[in-house]
Amino acid sequence: MQTLVYAFIIVNLALALFEDPAVVPLPIWATSTIEIICLSAFSVRMVHYAKVIPKDKFWKDPKNICIIVVVTLSFIDLTMYGALKSTGYFALRWSRVLRPLLLVNVTEGRQLRRAFRSIRNALPQISYVFLLFMFSVLVFSLVALKLFGKRGLLTIDGSPYFTDYLDIVFDLYVLVTTANSPDVMMPAYNYSVFFTIFFILYIVINTYTFMSFFLAVVYSNYKKHLKEEVRQLVKARRFKMCRAFSLLQEARGEGGEPVVTQAKWNHLVKLVKPNISIAHRELLWSVLDDQNKGHIGKFAFVQLADLLSIQVITVKSQPHPIQIRFPSMYNSPVSRFIRYVVHQRMFVYVYDLIILVNAVFIGLDEENPVVSNAEWGFLALYMLEIILKLYATEPRAFFARHHFWNCRQILDIIFVLRVLRLVRLVDSIKRSDSYSQMLNKSGLFHCCPLQVVYYIFAMVGMELFKGKVQFFEPNSTSRDQEYCGNPLLKGTTFAKLNYCKNNFNNVISSFIVLLELTVVNQCGFTAVTHISARIFFVLFHIVVVIIIINIFVAFILEAFLVEYTIDKSDLQTSLEKKIEELELNVQQYVPFKPAIKLFD
Amino acid sequence: MQTLVYAFIIVNLALALFEDPAVVPLPIWATSTIEIICLSAFSVRMVHYAKVIPKDKFWKDPKNICIIVVVTLSFIDLTMYGALKSTGYFALRWSRVLRPLLLVNVTEGRQLRRAFRSIRNALPQISYVFLLFMFSVLVFSLVALKLFGKRGLLTIDGSPYFTDYLDIVFDLYVLVTTANSPDVMMPAYNYSVFFTIFFILYIVINTYTFMSFFLAVVYSNYKKHLKEEVRQLVKARRFKMCRAFSLLQEARGEGGEPVVTQAKWNHLVKLVKPNISIAHRELLWSVLDDQNKGHIGKFAFVQLADLLSIQVITVKSQPHPIQIRFPSMYNSPVSRFIRYVVHQRMFVYVYDLIILVNAVFIGLDEENPVVSNAEWGFLALYMLEIILKLYATEPRAFFARHHFWNCRQILDIIFVLRVLRLVRLVDSIKRSDSYSQMLNKSGLFHCCPLQVVYYIFAMVGMELFKGKVQFFEPNSTSRDQEYCGNPLLKGTTFAKLNYCKNNFNNVISSFIVLLELTVVNQCGFTAVTHISARIFFVLFHIVVVIIIINIFVAFILEAFLVEYTIDKSDLQTSLEKKIEELELNVQQYVPFKPAIKLFD
Repeated sequence: MQTLVYAFIIVNLALALFEDPAVVPLPIWATSTIEIICLSAFSVRMVHYAKVIPKDKFWKDPKNICIIVVVTLSFIDLTMYGALKSTGYFALRWSRVLRPLLLVNVTEGRQLRRAFRSIRNALPQISYVFLLFMFSVLVFSLVALKLFGKRGLLTIDGSPYFTDYLDIVFDLYVLVTTANSPDVMMPAYNYSVFFTIFFILYIVINTYTFMSFFLAVVYSNYKKHLKEEVRQLVKARRFKMCRAFSLLQEARGEGGEPVVTQAKWNHLVKLVKPNISIAHRELLWSVLDDQNKGHIGKFAFVQLADLLSIQVITVKSQPHPIQIRFPSMYNSPVSRFIRYVVHQRMFVYVYDLIILVNAVFIGLDEENPVVSNAEWGFLALYMLEIILKLYATEPRAFFARHHFWNCRQILDIIFVLRVLRLVRLVDSIKRSDSYSQMLNKSGLFHCCPLQVVYYIFAMVGMELFKGKVQFFEPNSTSRDQEYCGNPLLKGTTFAKLNYCKNNFNNVISSFIVLLELTVVNQCGFTAVTHISARIFFVLFHIVVVIIIINIFVAFILEAFLVEYTIDKSDLQTSLEKKIEELELNVQQYVPFKPAIKLFD
Repeated sequence: MQTLVYAFIIVNLALALFEDPAVVPLPIWATSTIEIICLSAFSVRMVHYAKVIPKDKFWKDPKNICIIVVVTLSFIDLTMYGALKSTGYFALRWSRVLRPLLLVNVTEGRQLRRAFRSIRNALPQISYVFLLFMFSVLVFSLVALKLFGKRGLLTIDGSPYFTDYLDIVFDLYVLVTTANSPDVMMPAYNYSVFFTIFFILYIVINTYTFMSFFLAVVYSNYKKHLKEEVRQLVKARRFKMCRAFSLLQEARGEGGEPVVTQAKWNHLVKLVKPNISIAHRELLWSVLDDQNKGHIGKFAFVQLADLLSIQVITVKSQPHPIQIRFPSMYNSPVSRFIRYVVHQRMFVYVYDLIILVNAVFIGLDEENPVVSNAEWGFLALYMLEIILKLYATEPRAFFARHHFWNCRQILDIIFVLRVLRLVRLVDSIKRSDSYSQMLNKSGLFHCCPLQVVYYIFAMVGMELFKGKVQFFEPNSTSRDQEYCGNPLLKGTTFAKLNYCKNNFNNVISSFIVLLELTVVNQCGFTAVTHISARIFFVLFHIVVVIIIINIFVAFILEAFLVEYTIDKSDLQTSLEKKIEELELNVQQYVPFKPAIKLFD
């Protein structure tokens, strides 16, 4: 059922590919039929949901109301659009903007909703700083008007410089995004050096200080929110563990306090993690029951979940297969020397160097016979590495430890992506650190809000700008090519730099334009429509760059600080101690830092 | 003496204004003489310093050695330059780059040195991330070469697109600074939509993720460093306070433990802060000695420094002068109503609105008689505000509370800077918050390293690029104007956008160019010299944007988080409680958050 709902949502969102302006044009009746099917599916789901859930609870949930409103509005829009189109009037599919709301509001979209809730929580503070920021921009614009307005300066296009208040506000806002620096400053600078003081002040205050404020606000909110969420998670888990304990407990301790026996505990672990080895389970038990009483108290029992989250790799220490068959050969001085060399760190470094040299060769001209033959040499070297490692290490340990890179090496042999081989170098650098680990958990989850916002802005942008800018194939002979098919763009830098393909003519190109706008907010588009289209770009900058990108940065900041500031949890330390006691090879146990611990 | 040393350093640094390439050209003998005087002064100071300080200590201090080396090198450079110039050879004043080191290394530049130490501490981690980052850029460049190199694409200038490995590396590096987005992507995008995936991946990984990593590394280091420094500060202060206690103590407590009597404490406070009022001192004492014993123990004594740092404004409650002279009139219902209105929050809001309307009028056309006459109306309204406030509030309290804005209002009357009046609005917004407070302490101190780095880069840049780009006055008739006096710039965007004044022809314009490069790293300069000049721009980006700007952002982040996460210190709470107990007006006491507390 869940998959079905998601499938319908994705189909509904993907309709943007086929609706006018389309990547693959489909007739209106086709897209409408698909949309009606999707909307009906959502309606059916809501009705079903309403039957299952108590009525008052159903109507109190804003999610359900939101879905109902969106579906209703979509139906209304669809009929209106159909009616208007068939009678030949101009019609607008405005409900398309609402589609991502379905994705956010289905009960299954909990992660996404949490991300949006996090944004909503930060909004009051952000808007407060934004007010101060806009005020600062407005005052600076006023000063600029008084300073430059009467001097008759001209911009590089020959238009008057800084004479209209709203133009100045917009120009200075764009300066915050650094898109029009230093162009916006040049006329004043050419007039007098002293005017640069104004721009320097502006850049320091607005571009740097206020933008950092935004980051700081988002970051502090993100931190607060994350802490609260993790605290609740830990609390909920502890509560559940306590309930489990009260179900399993027996009064057998010294003072008659409730305890859980090893037998019950073993049974529980077997149920929860069936694929755990007996040795591993014994190890975990010996950590909890460090006095060998045969039973554990509530405090030790509650730690079970944390303990299970610590990754432990068990490697059976076995002799090498060759050693079993040819012991004298395998233990000969030459063989011992080879094994010693392979296990040396130097061996790894030498192969890193070889990979680097290989990288240089890949960069060289491919048609040179020396270069293409060298490829075979490198391949032989890599083969040799695998063979040597297999010889020196027990095969099972080899595959357990170098799991990923062995797959990589097989890829090497298949010669598919030669350049990817270089990624191996990163691995040898990363081994000493754990930058990558922190991105595993929720890195992707933070991109989702961005996609939702992109979709909404793409829909609006397509309605505003579709067809205004045309792209002509390079070998086209049309004379419109010079100005992207729009006479309004004649002579603009937009046309000169051949940005014609940066248009809102279909969903894909809209997404690409929006990505470009995220990086640098260049708004040549205002030339093709009314000047008020600037609002679109300013809004986009506020929502995406000021809020969402900052959340991404905040996520990385927090993840990084977490990595650097946590001490090992007590549990992990005692586990490692126990392992050492039992004289196992500690190196085989990959310590995993449970990020949750530090928020307690 | 200190001032003298600083004066010499500033003169020495300011020489850059007069030396070739100069803002105000002076003959070589003049600048050389000034420099010799400066260097002699430093030498004399070092000799004096060496006599005062024990020899082994003097030679162990890297600061002294650095100063000696810099002075010696400057002398050598000066003589070489003089000799070469007089014989007509080409000469380079390379020692000018070293001048800021004097500023950093004089014993008085402790703050600046601390900032540089903080940067140095962050360097190993930054360089580690930088390695990863450069590796990623190199791999992406390799992929780009393989993807685009053979397709015969052309850039907008008609030059081949992505065919040379080093060019690609540079272009992709610049894409990280967002300076050449989306230009660098357009040829590939025009060829096929699918190639944008490469650029999207690149932007997500390098422009966003890695740049955030840099910020995270700098921030975590900054935080660690700051904590350590504050901890040492607090420790040193506590140690000193303990020593002071042991000097003042008497064995008089119940258990015979050492205490300090009120008389001695009073005497101490009088010595430390002579301008503190008796009432204030009594208040502080009553906070420390909350059981009225007449003496305090070590623990309470040590808190003295923290207690003195809490700002307390004492306002004597006096009747209004008018009330004394005309009591019946001042207490009449009408007068009471006026006073009530003035003290209302609404009154402030109404005046904020008036200021806003005034702002709109300032933005309007000045020559319109209505607008210029309205100015007088606004002025009258502001006068009325002052009079009403003076009437409603006791004058001394009025000046104590609105100190700054009264000066502002006097300025208003003198009509000097009409626009600045708008800053009043910020005050009313800020009153409820304390964004400004956190910037007071060390905001400026974090700009100093930037200036040192700017100076060094300006010196190098001037040697590399001086005279290569010429600026012509707008009314000049020279035909060189089109290409900034350098045929190499013919037809480049640099010349087209009239960036001619962005040059390294003197110190001031160098600083302005460097500021522009900080905002957006546009490197049109590489056209005028060898392509290896790109290294200069990449280095500048690494040092300024990746390190120093990130330290600035880290500072703001930390300051913001500190503002938002501290609870009031215990000391402050007990002081406020005591004030309430004594039935004083709590509102008169401005609570000052001691930022140091939270690092304990």
